[in-house]
Amino acid sequence: MDFDRLPATLWIAAGGALGTVGRYWVGIWMARWSQSLPWGTIAINVTGSFAIAFFATLTTAAGRYPVSDVGRLFFMVGICGGYTTFSSFTLQTLDLLRGGAPGRALLNIGISVVLGMLAVSAGYLVAERLNQTTV
Amino acid sequence: MDFDRLPATLWIAAGGALGTVGRYWVGIWMARWSQSLPWGTIAINVTGSFAIAFFATLTTAAGRYPVSDVGRLFFMVGICGGYTTFSSFTLQTLDLLRGGAPGRALLNIGISVVLGMLAVSAGYLVAERLNQTTV
Repeated sequence: MDFDRLPATLWIAAGGALGTVGRYWVGIWMARWSQSLPWGTIAINVTGSFAIAFFATLTTAAGRYPVSDVGRLFFMVGICGGYTTFSSFTLQTLDLLRGGAPGRALLNIGISVVLGMLAVSAGYLVAERLNQTTV
Repeated sequence: MDFDRLPATLWIAAGGALGTVGRYWVGIWMARWSQSLPWGTIAINVTGSFAIAFFATLTTAAGRYPVSDVGRLFFMVGICGGYTTFSSFTLQTLDLLRGGAPGRALLNIGISVVLGMLAVSAGYLVAERLNQTTV
C-alpha cells in the first residue's frame, strides 16, 4: 500500500477511527468479565502496548519489514493510539475509589502498568528476534 | 450485525478520528519540551483524564447538562479515548529504559499516574460543584 499518497493527518484520522471502534467492540465483548476490575481496558492497553512495540521494531528502516513514515504514523499514532486509552483507565480507577474499593483501584493501576510494561517489552523482544532471524 | 449499534459506532469512529488527530498535533507542538521526559504524552493523558471525568459528571441524566447515550459515547469513548494513549506511554517508558535512564522511566510512570489521577479527580469535583450550583 502506498501510504504517502494521502496526507499523514488523514491516515492518522483513519487509523484513530479504526482503533477507537476496535476498543469499543473489545470493551463490549469483555464487559461480562469487567465487574470487579476493568479487565476490558486492561486487555486493550496491554495488547495495544505489545502491538506498538512489535510494529515499531519490525518496521524501522533497519527492521525486517521497513514501512514508510506515514505508514508508521497510521499504525502507531492512529490505530494503536486510538485503540488504547489512558482516560478510561483513570476514570475507571476513580470509579473504584469512589465506590469504596481503594485496594482494587491500586490493583488496577499496578496491573495496568506492570502488564503494559511487560507487553511493550515482549513486543520489542519478539520483533527484535525476528529482525535478527535469517530467512 | 446489530444495526442499533451502527449510529453509535459511526459517532465513536468520528470522535476517535478527531481525538487522535488532536493528540498528533499536541504531540508535535510539545515535541520541543519532550526531550528528557515525554511531556507531550503526559500533558495529553492528563488533560484527557480531566476532560472525561468533567464531561461524564456534568452530562449524566442527573447532571446539569444531560447528554444522550450516543453523545456520551462520542465524547468519552471517541474523543477522549482517541486523544489519550496508553501505548505511547508504555513505548516511551520502554525507550527511556532502553536508553539507560531507568530513573526517568520510573519518573514517567509516576508522573503520568499521579497527575492523571489528580486530573480525573479534579474533573469530577469541578463538574460535581457545577451540578450543585443553582443557576
